[in-house]
Amino acid sequence: MVKTKWLALLLVRFLAFAATLSAAIVMATSHQNASVFAVSFEAKYSQTPAFKYFVIANAIVSVYGFLVLFLPSKSLLWRLVVAFDLVFTLLLSSSISAALAIAYVGKKGNSYAGWLPICGQVPKYCDQVKGALVAGFIGVIIYMVLLLHSIHTVLDPLLLKKP
Amino acid sequence: MVKTKWLALLLVRFLAFAATLSAAIVMATSHQNASVFAVSFEAKYSQTPAFKYFVIANAIVSVYGFLVLFLPSKSLLWRLVVAFDLVFTLLLSSSISAALAIAYVGKKGNSYAGWLPICGQVPKYCDQVKGALVAGFIGVIIYMVLLLHSIHTVLDPLLLKKP
Repeated sequence: MVKTKWLALLLVRFLAFAATLSAAIVMATSHQNASVFAVSFEAKYSQTPAFKYFVIANAIVSVYGFLVLFLPSKSLLWRLVVAFDLVFTLLLSSSISAALAIAYVGKKGNSYAGWLPICGQVPKYCDQVKGALVAGFIGVIIYMVLLLHSIHTVLDPLLLKKP
Repeated sequence: MVKTKWLALLLVRFLAFAATLSAAIVMATSHQNASVFAVSFEAKYSQTPAFKYFVIANAIVSVYGFLVLFLPSKSLLWRLVVAFDLVFTLLLSSSISAALAIAYVGKKGNSYAGWLPICGQVPKYCDQVKGALVAGFIGVIIYMVLLLHSIHTVLDPLLLKKP
């Protein structure tokens, strides 16, 4: 592989690692104390299973993303990386969708089910969750691009190279 | 490709099509009328954005799965199918995760956020949603296996064939 292309790929992978790591950290540190009618309570990510799943998924993928950075460019393991990329991209997109679905109810509520929005009481917590979701989105989009790039390189689906 | 292998692949793809189609239909037809304290209300999928997303995603993937069944085995478009499989598998797994996250709140509630479970009031609706989620799960798992199979065939990541 050409050296500049290799460095570009490493840079993109580093960005993906940074995005997933910050998503996990921002979500894991999100909490806010609030009191409503003299009843004080704390909002934090661990109260919502979907947010816990988001933190765990992003933490796992950051560890993987970190390890891949140190794989030598000639290693045969790169063939396995495509399959791992696929599995971890699926994990990321699934965790973000679950967290987003819950965050949406937290923001807008669901009047049919009688679930009230909670962002009015804990705006700082909501903003932090939003930040974590944005970072997670950046991470999953980079991984999707990496995957489509691998598939394109390997399969040449658009038949750009003459056979 | 060997003919029996081809037929097996078509059968698996047909199962995936059937699973996504039934997931979309079962979710789209889920509704129940109930009354609590003389206030009657109707529960249906369209009241929850995550369930709407689930129906739309499964409907799109069923159309795709149906069309792929008629692709001739020699067609060069099969190279493109891997990329499409990837995109649609991501769409499916994302929609199921979102629907599952909401269904979990509907079943268990979230005491921290003050969201009460609703399955006690509308058990038939909940069962139907559960059925749709199970069908959707079967569909996404078949697509994941198909994807890993494609990647395995193309890349031979475990180096089973001697170079």
